[in-house]
Amino acid sequence: MDEIGIGVIGTGFMGKAHALAWTTVHAVYPELPRPVLVAVADNVASAARAAAAQYGFRDWREDWRSVVEDPAVHAVSITAPNLLHHDMAVAAARAGKHIHCEKPLAPDAATALRMVQAAEAVGVVTQVGFNYQKNPLIRLARDMIAAGELGDILSFRAQHAEGFMADPDTPWGWRLDPAGGPGALADLGSHAIAMGRYLLGPIESLSADLQTVIASRPVGPGARERRAVEVDDVARLTVRFARGCGGLIEANWVATGRTMQLGFEVSGTKGSIAFTQERLNELHLFRAGADPLTSGFTRIEAGPRHEPYGRFCVAPGHQLGFNELKTIEMAGFLSAIAGGERTGPDFREAWEVQKVIDAAVESSRERAWRPVG
Amino acid sequence: MDEIGIGVIGTGFMGKAHALAWTTVHAVYPELPRPVLVAVADNVASAARAAAAQYGFRDWREDWRSVVEDPAVHAVSITAPNLLHHDMAVAAARAGKHIHCEKPLAPDAATALRMVQAAEAVGVVTQVGFNYQKNPLIRLARDMIAAGELGDILSFRAQHAEGFMADPDTPWGWRLDPAGGPGALADLGSHAIAMGRYLLGPIESLSADLQTVIASRPVGPGARERRAVEVDDVARLTVRFARGCGGLIEANWVATGRTMQLGFEVSGTKGSIAFTQERLNELHLFRAGADPLTSGFTRIEAGPRHEPYGRFCVAPGHQLGFNELKTIEMAGFLSAIAGGERTGPDFREAWEVQKVIDAAVESSRERAWRPVG
Amino acid sequence: MDEIGIGVIGTGFMGKAHALAWTTVHAVYPELPRPVLVAVADNVASAARAAAAQYGFRDWREDWRSVVEDPAVHAVSITAPNLLHHDMAVAAARAGKHIHCEKPLAPDAATALRMVQAAEAVGVVTQVGFNYQKNPLIRLARDMIAAGELGDILSFRAQHAEGFMADPDTPWGWRLDPAGGPGALADLGSHAIAMGRYLLGPIESLSADLQTVIASRPVGPGARERRAVEVDDVARLTVRFARGCGGLIEANWVATGRTMQLGFEVSGTKGSIAFTQERLNELHLFRAGADPLTSGFTRIEAGPRHEPYGRFCVAPGHQLGFNELKTIEMAGFLSAIAGGERTGPDFREAWEVQKVIDAAVESSRERAWRPVG
Amino acid sequence: MDEIGIGVIGTGFMGKAHALAWTTVHAVYPELPRPVLVAVADNVASAARAAAAQYGFRDWREDWRSVVEDPAVHAVSITAPNLLHHDMAVAAARAGKHIHCEKPLAPDAATALRMVQAAEAVGVVTQVGFNYQKNPLIRLARDMIAAGELGDILSFRAQHAEGFMADPDTPWGWRLDPAGGPGALADLGSHAIAMGRYLLGPIESLSADLQTVIASRPVGPGARERRAVEVDDVARLTVRFARGCGGLIEANWVATGRTMQLGFEVSGTKGSIAFTQERLNELHLFRAGADPLTSGFTRIEAGPRHEPYGRFCVAPGHQLGFNELKTIEMAGFLSAIAGGERTGPDFREAWEVQKVIDAAVESSRERAWRPVG
Repeated sequence: MDEIGIGVIGTGFMGKAHALAWTTVHAVYPELPRPVLVAVADNVASAARAAAAQYGFRDWREDWRSVVEDPAVHAVSITAPNLLHHDMAVAAARAGKHIHCEKPLAPDAATALRMVQAAEAVGVVTQVGFNYQKNPLIRLARDMIAAGELGDILSFRAQHAEGFMADPDTPWGWRLDPAGGPGALADLGSHAIAMGRYLLGPIESLSADLQTVIASRPVGPGARERRAVEVDDVARLTVRFARGCGGLIEANWVATGRTMQLGFEVSGTKGSIAFTQERLNELHLFRAGADPLTSGFTRIEAGPRHEPYGRFCVAPGHQLGFNELKTIEMAGFLSAIAGGERTGPDFREAWEVQKVIDAAVESSRERAWRPVG
Repeated sequence: MDEIGIGVIGTGFMGKAHALAWTTVHAVYPELPRPVLVAVADNVASAARAAAAQYGFRDWREDWRSVVEDPAVHAVSITAPNLLHHDMAVAAARAGKHIHCEKPLAPDAATALRMVQAAEAVGVVTQVGFNYQKNPLIRLARDMIAAGELGDILSFRAQHAEGFMADPDTPWGWRLDPAGGPGALADLGSHAIAMGRYLLGPIESLSADLQTVIASRPVGPGARERRAVEVDDVARLTVRFARGCGGLIEANWVATGRTMQLGFEVSGTKGSIAFTQERLNELHLFRAGADPLTSGFTRIEAGPRHEPYGRFCVAPGHQLGFNELKTIEMAGFLSAIAGGERTGPDFREAWEVQKVIDAAVESSRERAWRPVG
Repeated sequence: MDEIGIGVIGTGFMGKAHALAWTTVHAVYPELPRPVLVAVADNVASAARAAAAQYGFRDWREDWRSVVEDPAVHAVSITAPNLLHHDMAVAAARAGKHIHCEKPLAPDAATALRMVQAAEAVGVVTQVGFNYQKNPLIRLARDMIAAGELGDILSFRAQHAEGFMADPDTPWGWRLDPAGGPGALADLGSHAIAMGRYLLGPIESLSADLQTVIASRPVGPGARERRAVEVDDVARLTVRFARGCGGLIEANWVATGRTMQLGFEVSGTKGSIAFTQERLNELHLFRAGADPLTSGFTRIEAGPRHEPYGRFCVAPGHQLGFNELKTIEMAGFLSAIAGGERTGPDFREAWEVQKVIDAAVESSRERAWRPVG
Repeated sequence: MDEIGIGVIGTGFMGKAHALAWTTVHAVYPELPRPVLVAVADNVASAARAAAAQYGFRDWREDWRSVVEDPAVHAVSITAPNLLHHDMAVAAARAGKHIHCEKPLAPDAATALRMVQAAEAVGVVTQVGFNYQKNPLIRLARDMIAAGELGDILSFRAQHAEGFMADPDTPWGWRLDPAGGPGALADLGSHAIAMGRYLLGPIESLSADLQTVIASRPVGPGARERRAVEVDDVARLTVRFARGCGGLIEANWVATGRTMQLGFEVSGTKGSIAFTQERLNELHLFRAGADPLTSGFTRIEAGPRHEPYGRFCVAPGHQLGFNELKTIEMAGFLSAIAGGERTGPDFREAWEVQKVIDAAVESSRERAWRPVG
């Protein structure tokens, strides 16, 4: 397989990010099938047309179904709002397309499971956009933990906090539609939960508190009429991992001033790792047992030793950007399509994340601990 | 009142810190009564004798009661292990002494209440060693929040994490004695809870998870025999403040590599504040609504504008140390004794903190939300 | 002009970076002429062939002249070692090609001038790879300075320090060939000098100290034979700008542990700016005259308000990477070719930088201050 | 010798710092002679009287000579403006007093030499207030360099930059009196020079540029009349150490927004150290040769392993403050008086620093390199 036809659904934030990654990935991973940008869809025709011109899609469509059904398309990127993921993904699976879908995968675990089943029934490759895992330094952290370099894991703390909804006059939007699932918990918390699972494995039980702190918002930009908010602005989870250790996870989109505070700290008997996406090219590592005269957290800068950084730049410290994490993500997807290892995170993994989210919703409603799944 | 007789009970970590602060405070606050170091007590006679020589106490004792009852002593510093605080404080109150007691005040709220009652019955000034509140920058944070400069408070996140118990071979010690109350929750969590209350007011309800992650420890340094640990190494609290906002509080003494990670972030509709005691002379402030071209978190360095920094140094950025926070604490205590405002935190405030701790213990045991008090 | 034929000479560090940028730029700047990758040259045939396959050049060549002379090529990227820039650029100019050449432009100012003259004689667009200027936050810094927001500029301090030559057993290489010009001064110092000029304008005079600190190096990887080093490992410049303010500039490739310490601090009567490429998405701004209670350096995170960040990502704080600076650079070059403003830095600007370098070499040799140019 | 009589001259910034350190030192270093605060002098009687009351001096004087000649005084702290140091120190030496004098020691090296000679003629202990060297982490840095842990030293960069003179309307004051020596070079640069010498040994030659950037200042607070400034606001030194390595040193009191930017970076073949007094409890260490996968700069936090931190606090990470550096300084002075090692920095060392300053003044005037001394 030398080439692979790509269809992209959606032209917003993530639609652009996908299109850009599809444009770039071959130059960085020349050994993988070359993506051919076949078609882009947006229900706003002008947006679809503009995106096609910008990124070089052969064609554009208003109807996403025509992308999914296009025989020249072998893989689709789904970047539409959450609520639409299910129908798109199921249709794509039925059409035999490989699927990259943005997170959160679905409004709830039951829906996610149907997507898993649809995809697994036909065996297509699936991937979900937990892009932050694709950071070479996160892979290093995961590998070190898996290799026991931090010893027994004692504690975990994570948050994904941003401030884009902190202004009470930021208007209502699709992220607030309860039909799409929870609010900050789904939008940001899914990243932090997926990160926790990636680093430490399954979450077994949890207690959660979902809170709506801004009770109503303008129905639209500048509108005087306000609409009640039904989803969480902040979600706070206390979790227990199957491996025994516990942790805190916060999802927060009213964290005034924060733009990308996806961070965590993992403590073990032999060491600790701290990270924040605010400085995505740095990982902080502490090793226990060293001479206290000179021990401390070491600031590791991303470099060519941290695969696949070297594909982007041969010199350390030059720094990857967010879009390059997305390129790495697409490369993994392409590689799996070409028969390589399926490194995911796939629909099944996203379903697991969704189960944690569902348990959190239920726990918060019931004010009680809940098992996951 | 020109002079005030001081007795100190205990010569360990906090005993030294108190003695040092008592030595220094007059040079910084000359308008306050001058402390006269009357007597120091330690049940290890050699330790008491050495402390007396070092800090210039007129006398030393093995029996703390003789300090409490000494007519030349007007105020006592209680720095012995938690379990002993109650008897010492009650005896001191009955002897009419003003009392500075280290935190946590007591093993539980009921005990703390008896201490409050004993002190209030005679009207002596009380103070509890939540020293981190005495940082001029923390006062600034509190004042800004109180003045509404952050707008409505949307979220709070705090932790006090250190790594001094992370090594499974760190031996058993009095901090692990369940008769003294919880573990990390009491030792470190009390600071984070007190900080939350200082900044945002009362906590109304919570859900907590207390976890012992190191199941047993050597009975003593180098011992092969091990003793089961019954108290928490990590405590994770999800809280709701009476003012409406929610928060996370973590207490953790197995945070490998951390020495003083007492930090918090407060987000409001008009701004945010972030702080960590790891850099105690810096406060990070974000103001919403500024031009996004140049907005961001501002790193405020402590200086003479931040009272009472200027008493210690006339130039900004030169930095206060931990011991100077303790000096500020003693000054507040002295000022209250001399008839000034009682700024605390006093026994009553520590009782409130203890109620939060008790609720957390119960919540964790019952796996359920609990009201505070 | 809808399309523009591109030829790239060289396939090393910068060759890859140029090729990647040429691949990406159209998706980010769709309004500009679309680059068509016509040919890539490398005197190692296999490298040229591999690069062609990877980046999608139509053709590859061993002889750079055949690229320069190819009628389908309208613009060339010159990324070969410094020593070769002159012949390549002059040939390209004579062939009427627009030229993007890596820095430093030439071994000395006289050579650079001939390149300027060759290019200006035919009017082609030229650009030199001072990529760090293309950071949106650097543009912000420059704009603020130009607008007087820092007041009168009082002082400047800059360095470009990396550690890639700090190991005495790092072998001899083309960067050490004195025929190519100075060492760290040309390789790294040219960036710091260009940055100083970009921010503050012309440098009028200087005193410099060029130092070779590792006297000899293995003639090749693993070789026992060593060759004397004739160029500087560290260059230290004290400069006076035409505007009156003074500054320090350090170029250093033996700064053990540093990977990208290109940093500066500019102080003015009304404010200061500090930056380091180690955290390229952050700019630190201090404004004088604010309330000292809450003033300090503000950490500005790059976001869509900082043009052209928004072309890459609609959300602030997600971060650009090094390669994206290169993409911005190519966009400026393309825009100028298409008739837009020539924003440079062009050959003439690089000639000015070279004059500073020449003056530094002479100053160091003569142990005396020297005027620039 | 159980007690030692102390006289302090001056009650300003450093007068207060000395008095506070004299008050505290015995509680931290009980094995040293106990300082008895005999007398304090200030030519403003009310200031002297207030200081005596505040710090507990037995007596106060308007005339510094009566302190120097008081038989109960065994050691004097000289904290008056530079211009007065010589007469005070020579008188003190003649009276057989040990002398702690603030920096810079004298307006020039010749004057400093006379002070050295006066002190050495009678053998009294001398000390000069280069307090930043007393930081336990700076001692660690020095010890590591001396032990060869950084390998051969390749480069040095230091600055002491503050912004307290950046406002053109900050009035004229004694620091601007050319009779007292240079400006920023003497006031701040002396610290950076002393630090360089402490870490790396003698400076052999230099080229310097002293610049007055604010040409005139109000003759007094709020005055409309302005007085020409004759001393440097910024001094930039390029130096060569006797050991072979070179360096940059900047002294700058117009660094808007900076309060304590005394920082340095030392690079060697085996490692590097970076420090800034802005975070005085942290030292950053890089060790070459470690696995690049996890290498980087390690942030070492001051703790009890770093002598004498443990005397102040038994727990790491709690942080020393500026005043405690001054206490450590006084302890070294006391120890030398009691017959212990004379660790300095003494008058002779300050004379060496002064020679560097003199050479810098001459170099700047002559626009040429100058040997030191």
